[in-house]
Order: sequence, then C-alpha cells, then structure tokens
Amino acid sequence: MSLAEQVLEGNIRAAARLMRDIDDCRPEAIEELKLLYHRTGKAFIIGITGPPGAGKSTLVDQLTASFRTRGKKVGVVAIDPTSPFTGGAILGDRIRMNRHSCDEGVFIRSLATRGSLGGLSRSTSDVALVMDAIGMDIIIIETVGVGQDEVDIVKEAHTTCVVMVPGLGDDIQAIKAGILEIGDIFVVNKADRDGADRTARELSNMLEMRNIVDGNWNPQVMKTEATRGTGINELTDEIMKHRDFFLTSGTMSTFLRERNQRHFMGILRDTLFRKALLFMAINNDLDRVVSGMSDHHIDPYSAVEEIVAKMMPQRVE
Amino acid sequence: MSLAEQVLEGNIRAAARLMRDIDDCRPEAIEELKLLYHRTGKAFIIGITGPPGAGKSTLVDQLTASFRTRGKKVGVVAIDPTSPFTGGAILGDRIRMNRHSCDEGVFIRSLATRGSLGGLSRSTSDVALVMDAIGMDIIIIETVGVGQDEVDIVKEAHTTCVVMVPGLGDDIQAIKAGILEIGDIFVVNKADRDGADRTARELSNMLEMRNIVDGNWNPQVMKTEATRGTGINELTDEIMKHRDFFLTSGTMSTFLRERNQRHFMGILRDTLFRKALLFMAINNDLDRVVSGMSDHHIDPYSAVEEIVAKMMPQRVE
Repeated sequence: MSLAEQVLEGNIRAAARLMRDIDDCRPEAIEELKLLYHRTGKAFIIGITGPPGAGKSTLVDQLTASFRTRGKKVGVVAIDPTSPFTGGAILGDRIRMNRHSCDEGVFIRSLATRGSLGGLSRSTSDVALVMDAIGMDIIIIETVGVGQDEVDIVKEAHTTCVVMVPGLGDDIQAIKAGILEIGDIFVVNKADRDGADRTARELSNMLEMRNIVDGNWNPQVMKTEATRGTGINELTDEIMKHRDFFLTSGTMSTFLRERNQRHFMGILRDTLFRKALLFMAINNDLDRVVSGMSDHHIDPYSAVEEIVAKMMPQRVE
Repeated sequence: MSLAEQVLEGNIRAAARLMRDIDDCRPEAIEELKLLYHRTGKAFIIGITGPPGAGKSTLVDQLTASFRTRGKKVGVVAIDPTSPFTGGAILGDRIRMNRHSCDEGVFIRSLATRGSLGGLSRSTSDVALVMDAIGMDIIIIETVGVGQDEVDIVKEAHTTCVVMVPGLGDDIQAIKAGILEIGDIFVVNKADRDGADRTARELSNMLEMRNIVDGNWNPQVMKTEATRGTGINELTDEIMKHRDFFLTSGTMSTFLRERNQRHFMGILRDTLFRKALLFMAINNDLDRVVSGMSDHHIDPYSAVEEIVAKMMPQRVE
C-alpha cells in the first residue's frame, strides 16, 4: 500500500514519514502528494502570527484544546524561525504542547525556516495538505510575523489571527501598519499586563480608520490571557464566525483561486530551476559561467540566455 | 549612443534612466546591463543594516560626507521597506540627504521593497552595477535588517556594518544572534543615550564568544552619534581597514565566486519562469490548471510536470 493510501486511511505514522520525506525534498514525496491531492480541501486553516514573545505557542495550545472539546481534530504546523546564518533556532528548543501528546486527534509538526527547497511556504502548504488528507478538521499554522516568508505563510490560512501584546514600543508601531492588513481577528494576549486596554483600543482605532466596505468582514480585537485560558472560548467563537463568513460570502472562491495559482507557480518555478541545474551539470556550465563572471568577460544575462536557448530549442516567445 | 555607453562616459541622467528601466523590468534594460557588465567590478560595496529607528539614514549621510572628503565618489542605494499588503512605505516618505543634492560625486537612489521581478536583491545588485559602471568608488547599500530579503541584500556588500541602538528589549536580543553573523563592523549609534556603553559591551562580549580563527577578521564595536557626526571618521577608517583586509586576505575571491553564482542562478530562475508564463499563455494553461485545482481533479505537481515536458521535449535528466 502506498504511503498516500495509508495517510488517507488515517495512519499517523505514515503521515509523519511523508512529512519527513517532504522536508528532505525526496522526489518520492511528490508522487505521494499527487495521490493525496484529490482527497484534500476539507480542512479549515487558521494562521496565528505576531511578534516574538507574544505568547503564540501558548495561545495555539489553548486553541487546540478548545477545538478538541468541540469535537474537531486539530493539526498544528509550528514554524520555528532559525537564524539564516548559523542554522540554529532563534527561539531555542521548546517543548510543545505536551498535554496533547497522547491525543490521537492532535497532530503537531514543527518546521524550521531553512533548508526547504522552494521556500518555507511550500513546505508549509505541503505539510498542511498531509494533515488535511489524514482528516484533521482544523489546521493551525503558527508563525512569527516578521518577514515576507511569514507573510506568504499567512496567505495559506483561511482565517488569520494577529497576536499582539501590551506595551510594544514605537518601532513595532511601524510594523503594525503592515500587520493590520493581514489580520481577520486581532488578539491582545497577556491581557493582564499593564496597558492591555490601551493596546486593544489603539488597535481598534487603527482598524476603524480602514474603510470597511459593506458586506466585508469587520475585524474585531479580542483580549486573551493564554496562560490561564481566559478569552479562549470567545476567540474560538470568533474564529468560527469568520469561518462561516468565509464560506458564505464568496470570499472562499477568490481565496482558493489565488492560493492555487500561487502553489502551481511556485512548484513550476522550482521544477524549472531544478531541471536547469541538472542540465548545466552535464556540461559543467555553472563553473564556466561563474569563473567567466569573476574576470568580467562573461555577463550573467547573456550566459542565462545561452543556457535557456540550449534547454528549450523551440521558440516559446 | 546606447544608454550603456552614456553611463560608461559618466552620464548621470543616462544612469538614472537605466535604473528606472531596471525598476520597470523592461527587457531593454537587460541588453544595456550586458554591455555594462565587462566594465564593472571596481566599486567597493558597503552594507548598512539594523533595526528601524537605529538612525541608519543619518549614519549613511555622514559616511557619504566622510568618503567625499577623502575624494571618493559615493553611490547610495537605500532600501525603503514597504508594506507587502498596501504597497505603502512603512517608514513614510523621508527626505534623503538634501545636503548632497548638488554634489555630482554622490548618486542616491531609493528602492522600494516590492514589485521588483526577481526580488529586491536582484534590483539592488543591478542598480549597484550601474553605479559601479558610472564610476562610483564606494556604494553604500542601506537596508532594514529584518527578513531574509534584507539578509540577501547584505550579501551583496564587501563590508557590512550592523547598526544598533542602546536599550533594545529582550525580543531584539533574539534577533541579534542572527545579526552577529553578518556584521564585519558593529556600530552602536545614538551613543549619547543611556546604556550605550552597556550595549557596546554586550555586543563585544557576544562577539568574543564566537571563535575567531587566526587570520580571520575580528569585528570591532564602534560608537557613533550620527546626528552630530561623532565617531564617523573612526568608522570610515575601520571600514577602510576591513576593505584592505578583504582585498589582501583572499576573502575577495571566495566572496566574488559566491556572489556571482547567486546572481547567475537568480537570473536563470527568473528567466525560466518568465518563459514558462509566456509558454502557458499560448494555451491558456494557467487558467485550466488553477480551475482544475479548485475542484481538486488536477493536482499541481502533475500539472507542472506536464507543462515542463511540453516546454522541454528533450530529456534533461
């Protein structure tokens, strides 16, 4: 029986192995994903993003528990940012959600932000696909909201929660401007801290300044205290409310179209590039070009045109 | 006379026009860059990076003045981060370095962090290439040190200065770990502020914990007060010291090889993808695939294989 078939039957170990193969960029993984694809599209994907230290892991842990009490199976994809220079995890090792470790209805997977061919958003969507195929109803993607990579990940989610904490400085204020655009729900976590109300009010004011077109979703600001579980039930309700809106308002079809196009183009881009690397390896082109560039007698633009012409002899323009 | 020839003769307006063409992704720009390429490679490139609010613009302004008094022509490429969602500049409009506006030996160019095909690091290196061709001795690339995009930009520089400010919080501490790896020189700016000595000492301690192999560069921590010009001369000296090290230690050849390979591969990747888009446009493939993905009867992996096989009928594996 293929890995894909085992995954579709709900075999957790098969799913874990397939995810590992995805991580290792094994070509066999692609074959399995092909077999899975037509059986996916059922899971609802929630993105949780926000600055480091906002308490996202704890919040995800609580949301997982909350969805479990509502009878939903929950997959979690946690993106652990790693330094692009050392490969070490910036946030260090952390023990994730031990309390769900014996629950078959919870599937947790960490991804490191490097080494994945085609970028992190590709691995994230592939891993989410496997979780979808194995029957998870809800998939939570947790990521630190900083760079473009993270923004791309958030685009995978149907509902995006932006998590903030009270008392962020002026510098973060600037970043907020960008974050306002991606949130469907805003969460002020650590709501017991000084300034929680003020941060919530500021966020509300900033959100009100956006022109919400009639019939569009109007993002709310929720307050939580994830370590004690306060506000989690209300947040879960709000997420389900956004889900209903998403499914009934026609937002879903636009979302799917954009996401599918992005997936397809990403895979296309990577596949072409991989083919080119193989092609160049035959004639040792890469070495010749790079050496020629060093003494500036070969320019990269002409070199690329030459390689591409050799790869695709027919005219495609 | 071609734009490239005009640029090589030092025509500033021609250079500005070519940069605009690069920004607009006009194919003619590539033809001009081909003509320029063999006459470049003379400029020394300095990267300035650090968190928002560290005073990078002012520091770059002062460094520009300092290099001018040393008889160097200075090009500045300032990366203005824009929100990926609205397209608006996060930091808002800012007036850059008015005092150099009448100086023919200074060429300043802002790049926005979106809309550039092939990513920002490609545009940055292309713009730097034009500045090199027009005869700038020093090119300063200024960027906010946050995401992977910015890290890629920093890789363009021969010498990278990481700018910090006193009193950064715990969250930034985590990010510092990554930033330590990229700095050749560390600058504590706003050195008149409380805690400047402590920040400088902390940085020094962190740097000392790295194992500097004998014969490698040993990064120093410098203190500046850019608004008053304090410490700028010393910083310029240190940059020149690193430049000498770079040129004499053999670091340069490794650096060039890696950079050239990155440039070549980036251009190759984008060119292939552009060809694929043109190819698909002929048969309306994109629409067919994306629609098929929506009802999950087409999977993107198989669709990509099919398109690639049509584009490259010969076997390249």
